[in-house]
Amino acid sequence: MSHPIRGNAIIGQAGGPTAVINQSLVGVIEEAQRSDHIHHLYGARHGIRGIVNEQFYDLKRQPRNMLKMVAQTPASALGATRDRPDQNYCERIFKMFRKFDVRYFFYIGGNDSAESARIIDKIASDSKYELRVLHIPKTIDNDLLGTDHCPGYGSAAKFVASAFIGDNLDNRALQGVKINILMGRRTGFLTAASILARQRPDDGPHLVYLPERPFDVDQFVQDVQEVYDQLGRCVVAIAEGITDCDGAFWAEKMFSMRRENIERDEFGNVQLTAGAGSLADYLVVILRDRCKNIKRVRADIFGYLQRSFPDYCSEVDAWEARLVGQMAVNYSLDAERAGSVALVRLPSTTYSAGTKLVRLEEVAPVHPPKIKILPAEYINETGNNVLDSFREYVRPLVGHLPRVGWFEQIAQPWHR
Amino acid sequence: MSHPIRGNAIIGQAGGPTAVINQSLVGVIEEAQRSDHIHHLYGARHGIRGIVNEQFYDLKRQPRNMLKMVAQTPASALGATRDRPDQNYCERIFKMFRKFDVRYFFYIGGNDSAESARIIDKIASDSKYELRVLHIPKTIDNDLLGTDHCPGYGSAAKFVASAFIGDNLDNRALQGVKINILMGRRTGFLTAASILARQRPDDGPHLVYLPERPFDVDQFVQDVQEVYDQLGRCVVAIAEGITDCDGAFWAEKMFSMRRENIERDEFGNVQLTAGAGSLADYLVVILRDRCKNIKRVRADIFGYLQRSFPDYCSEVDAWEARLVGQMAVNYSLDAERAGSVALVRLPSTTYSAGTKLVRLEEVAPVHPPKIKILPAEYINETGNNVLDSFREYVRPLVGHLPRVGWFEQIAQPWHR
Repeated sequence: MSHPIRGNAIIGQAGGPTAVINQSLVGVIEEAQRSDHIHHLYGARHGIRGIVNEQFYDLKRQPRNMLKMVAQTPASALGATRDRPDQNYCERIFKMFRKFDVRYFFYIGGNDSAESARIIDKIASDSKYELRVLHIPKTIDNDLLGTDHCPGYGSAAKFVASAFIGDNLDNRALQGVKINILMGRRTGFLTAASILARQRPDDGPHLVYLPERPFDVDQFVQDVQEVYDQLGRCVVAIAEGITDCDGAFWAEKMFSMRRENIERDEFGNVQLTAGAGSLADYLVVILRDRCKNIKRVRADIFGYLQRSFPDYCSEVDAWEARLVGQMAVNYSLDAERAGSVALVRLPSTTYSAGTKLVRLEEVAPVHPPKIKILPAEYINETGNNVLDSFREYVRPLVGHLPRVGWFEQIAQPWHR
Repeated sequence: MSHPIRGNAIIGQAGGPTAVINQSLVGVIEEAQRSDHIHHLYGARHGIRGIVNEQFYDLKRQPRNMLKMVAQTPASALGATRDRPDQNYCERIFKMFRKFDVRYFFYIGGNDSAESARIIDKIASDSKYELRVLHIPKTIDNDLLGTDHCPGYGSAAKFVASAFIGDNLDNRALQGVKINILMGRRTGFLTAASILARQRPDDGPHLVYLPERPFDVDQFVQDVQEVYDQLGRCVVAIAEGITDCDGAFWAEKMFSMRRENIERDEFGNVQLTAGAGSLADYLVVILRDRCKNIKRVRADIFGYLQRSFPDYCSEVDAWEARLVGQMAVNYSLDAERAGSVALVRLPSTTYSAGTKLVRLEEVAPVHPPKIKILPAEYINETGNNVLDSFREYVRPLVGHLPRVGWFEQIAQPWHR
């Protein structure tokens, strides 16, 4: 099974986009263009949906300058989907593969995509159909197992760190309390990256709340009050996925709490799925209510900016995203029939990374389901901050960060 | 009165920061360093509050490399204040000027700061005290009269345009409806800049709602449904300051509407001042409720990112912000005793701007109060979009924008 097969290839992109997901796409295209074994490389429009609907881009024929532009463009150039295919759906996909003599399937995505890839590989294997299934990891959440980190994370982390550098300066200038709600339903990696904004000892974020630790409102109020009393200001980073002690999402809880009290509310019968807005408002209100000496409280929701802001990716992340795409093609031409391309941090004084192929089950275990969360060693005891040791893990991944200047000393009034 | 005076100078920064407000500060510092007439240049910490509290930075002595760093750093390096001084407060300031032989006062800010400058100038004039009062404009809202545009606006507009370029791509990839709430309580200039994201005919933002036109929810639902039915997606830009037909802020209205129905709500007795979160949630809920075929609706609040994101300013804006700072010193040394430095767009085929000195009253008229709003010629008849003609006004101010790539054609399935 280790000889290259001749046939066609399909590539798809799935789930929430990242700033560098197209680097992986272009990595695959460029390597496929060099290969005689891959006749056609077709890009499925909106992921697996494009396969069953027979909607494709002809990717081996794209001109070099267009590829260069697409590579540096955020969000999935082929279109994405949130469809989670079941066995039946995967069999329809496989039928298309047979029909079009597809022998290579590249799927760029997160957990769900790795699971889809696994099912399709199983069907092909059971049918004795020669197919190479390669999962290419991407997620700003950084929650995939089997890889040191995920392409897409570094750029999102860079955006978050930069945003907090600016927001911390803004908060220095006008003071008060500023809360930023960050993406991350289940893992705190992205929220934790906010600590890269700390340069001076009193820089924010001063408090960091993660999905990995229960969020207690009384503790939160006390934490903010303490920082504010000390510094006259406070910058807070909160993951949208914070939960209470019972593991319920605070954002959803906000909505339920409101519903109980708002029977006649005209929008009471509609559900907020995102809930970040409700959560933000709730925390602002709680602080205004309970901390009488705090006048300015404001909350922003960075939302999709974290994954789609253009022209602002991490150089390292862009390079690695390209690499995992290229390596997917290389592995498919001479290695096992299925796997996910993982990044390996190489032992070295300066940061460098390589790749290896890991089993699909390793990336997205389904029985029981498992994701990577922020290791406990990076979280302080109280559970309201991220330790400086996390810098070592995250700093090399974000590349260049903005440098800022400030005036050190306050002058004594003259003429005295 | 047109000869240069010898004495000390004070500079302060006021109100919401911008990405280039420190360019103006450094423009003043560098020119002051060249002048023998200005003995000391002291930076008031947190604006006028620093004057009465006697907290200063010694600015003529700052090293060149520090100035270079500060210039490119967003948010007020001296600290800002939202204090709006009355006559009494201004007299305390003036007392300090006398005490420290201050003959030059530079104040970087918006309407309120121009008004403070006017009062202080009046007191000095009435007291026959020789004082040069120079207002240096800054605001991301672009709402000051007397100037073609305001330093700070171009960079915020660039952030908004870039954010919509990315968000539009994200929305293409995953579809659904995306709402972004932008800064701007009274003017729509910043929200209008989102149209720079349109490159292809079906690019978003597809709908733009401004404070200049009443916002009707039924019309909004109909507008979104129409775009969605046509494109399968919709990107919306909404200014936080949209009002209803009676001129009431929607954000505040949301809160009041809720309160009436939420007597037992645990946070019913607390007021949301920002209200952007409530507005965002409300619009998401309304769309989910009324547009049954729209599955994904999400709203983000860009908030302070628009004014404080580092390393992302418009080159033109940075240059002009520096220029108005430099010119403030030059005008103070040889022109009238008080004024605001205005930008003038020069008649030319390519964009270029100069400065002139305008009266303080012209920038911030108090009787009656008046600000610059987005001219009607740029708004479509229905009041739900900004016309392409606005590009001519705004495009030169934002400098470089990200370029993106995409695949043009869908391939026919092969083997047919």
